[in-house]
Amino acid sequence: MVGMDDLLFTPGPVGLPSPVLRAMATPMVSHRSDEFHELYEVVEEKLKRLLMSDEVEVYLLTASGTGAVEAAVANFIKPGDEVLVPLHGVFSERLAETVRAHGGTVVAVDCGDRRGPTAEEVESALRSNPRVSAVAVVINDTCPGVMLRNFREIAEVVKERGCLLIVDAVSAFGGVEIPVRDWGIDVLATATQKCLAAPPGLSIVAVSEEAAARLGGGSPGTYYLDLTKYRDFSRRRETPFTPALSILYALNEALDFILRVGFKRWVDFHEMRARALYSALSELGMRPFVSEDFRSTTVVSVEAEGRISEVAGLLRREFGIYVAGGIGRFKGRIVRVGNMGYLTKRDVVTLVACLALLLRRLGYEPRVGEALSAAYDALRGLTYPRAGR
Amino acid sequence: MVGMDDLLFTPGPVGLPSPVLRAMATPMVSHRSDEFHELYEVVEEKLKRLLMSDEVEVYLLTASGTGAVEAAVANFIKPGDEVLVPLHGVFSERLAETVRAHGGTVVAVDCGDRRGPTAEEVESALRSNPRVSAVAVVINDTCPGVMLRNFREIAEVVKERGCLLIVDAVSAFGGVEIPVRDWGIDVLATATQKCLAAPPGLSIVAVSEEAAARLGGGSPGTYYLDLTKYRDFSRRRETPFTPALSILYALNEALDFILRVGFKRWVDFHEMRARALYSALSELGMRPFVSEDFRSTTVVSVEAEGRISEVAGLLRREFGIYVAGGIGRFKGRIVRVGNMGYLTKRDVVTLVACLALLLRRLGYEPRVGEALSAAYDALRGLTYPRAGR
Repeated sequence: MVGMDDLLFTPGPVGLPSPVLRAMATPMVSHRSDEFHELYEVVEEKLKRLLMSDEVEVYLLTASGTGAVEAAVANFIKPGDEVLVPLHGVFSERLAETVRAHGGTVVAVDCGDRRGPTAEEVESALRSNPRVSAVAVVINDTCPGVMLRNFREIAEVVKERGCLLIVDAVSAFGGVEIPVRDWGIDVLATATQKCLAAPPGLSIVAVSEEAAARLGGGSPGTYYLDLTKYRDFSRRRETPFTPALSILYALNEALDFILRVGFKRWVDFHEMRARALYSALSELGMRPFVSEDFRSTTVVSVEAEGRISEVAGLLRREFGIYVAGGIGRFKGRIVRVGNMGYLTKRDVVTLVACLALLLRRLGYEPRVGEALSAAYDALRGLTYPRAGR
Repeated sequence: MVGMDDLLFTPGPVGLPSPVLRAMATPMVSHRSDEFHELYEVVEEKLKRLLMSDEVEVYLLTASGTGAVEAAVANFIKPGDEVLVPLHGVFSERLAETVRAHGGTVVAVDCGDRRGPTAEEVESALRSNPRVSAVAVVINDTCPGVMLRNFREIAEVVKERGCLLIVDAVSAFGGVEIPVRDWGIDVLATATQKCLAAPPGLSIVAVSEEAAARLGGGSPGTYYLDLTKYRDFSRRRETPFTPALSILYALNEALDFILRVGFKRWVDFHEMRARALYSALSELGMRPFVSEDFRSTTVVSVEAEGRISEVAGLLRREFGIYVAGGIGRFKGRIVRVGNMGYLTKRDVVTLVACLALLLRRLGYEPRVGEALSAAYDALRGLTYPRAGR
């Protein structure tokens, strides 16, 4: 059904809480004004709470998540560096490509289609390749929907070897706890339009103080993504280039919303909804694609076998609900249900009910009542605060 | 569930299409400027298309629907006039009170709690009360949910007797076809926040050219609601007092949206959804309150027997879905589901699924799959245009 607001179960952009959407209509200020400095500072403070550390620098880039990931790579990988990249989906392949584009040599850990690397595999690869100086890893690969729930162990292995740790956390940050300092993350890239429930167009690079001190040593091969500029400007609460100001307003509101919920609870909500979705989709007869240990909490993928492949198109046309298909080599093989940011108990029930109707229409016999109840049972604790509407 | 946007199945205010909501952020203009004149004129033209006549004057009041109804009564009923008022709910009782407040004598046609008047009853009452000079009638009484689907026949009877016909169409206008001139309506009052899917705060009085010519003959007992002023100002596309400008912007967008759908289809959508709701709620075990011939298409009421009375509170707390209870003498006796304006196929499925879950939780055994399918089947044709998001 068209014309209404879309209900987005996509892996970003995501639906926004009203205050976030409204913030987009805030009038402009100069990005060299005191007002802007204050805005930058409060956003930075709030982001540090989600990064779970004060000892980190935060740079705001007017770019998509891919831009932020490239900035992380370009500024910390020098030509000739050997970089270990676990491959567990389309986005980790892109990360490997980005490393190569900046002259790095990729040492791959190929995990196949349905799982991520174990810490042992990473350790073994590092032992076999002693010249590797950095590990670049996608913490949550939205296609096919693999999340490194064992990321802490992987990070330990990486730090024990003294390697630089670069993390693409675009589709995980905000939806899972990632204590950047405790886990020894040197550079983390993320974006506004995923688990942070803000509009797309702004991305974030978080850099440890040690790594920040190292910036400026050479040419990163990019002008726009040169983090040295971002670092120097961020120290006076500015961006080197004109920022996407409206999105910064919205991000500020989104962070307020998350902190009003409580960051820990916000993360819990992602887990609850993931449990609800995996259970309900199973009751509807849709089989999870990814191995149990690596199933993402921020995007849920199922096999697109038989007529289930028609479900995404029907959901869109009939109900204005957007889920995603596979991309790259996963095209036609999976249906992906995004579970990021601001989704409510009601949204999940809606999706399950609409899916049930369409599966029935396609000739399946989904267990409708059971699916709805399974979702609902998993969502008991999911309630958002009223303040700040 | 709180914090998210409410899903409103209330008898107004109603959820709004995005362009309508966004229009609220349009910057101000003077209400004595050319820009305002143009805005007034385009809104007037669009409203005339919904009034299905060019031979009508349109006045915009910064007031709720009750204000518009009072303006209609105050300006067309003189002290001592005998006014026939069919009583079929709380709002027709309020209309009768308003007539009395302005010195009119009410001749009531009491219809009981579950139906409206037949044309024969109105005719008979007019014959028995030959001094009646006006009929004031609520075309859709939202509590309990009685709609005069036989309104055309009633209007015929009224016009045959040469009576003035004043219509409270607050919760019907836009959701049903009301050709004001063909049906001989002299004064119609309505508001923005019901079937027009605009925000509350602005209301509309439509007056036939003949009735407009009669304005100014005496004191209406009100300054703010003196329609003579609105008439004189409207002829230069203005309002006598500062209007709720933002709401006028939004109304303009809402009318655009309706006309893009097509007015006839917009009305059909209300009927489809009503059929969907009556069928689905019956499958869930909820019994309609109103006699079949008088069941409203813009608000659906069911018996609040047993624990069904808990449903409204649970829907609100668990899912952020708002339905209404009864008011006045209907308090505790009914649950009312608003069906006005911009509700989608998805919204209806959502309501049915959430209701099913809560009824089960309350110990009932609703026919979940059947209810969902019944709703879905009735909603096949309900699709909104994509343009103008």
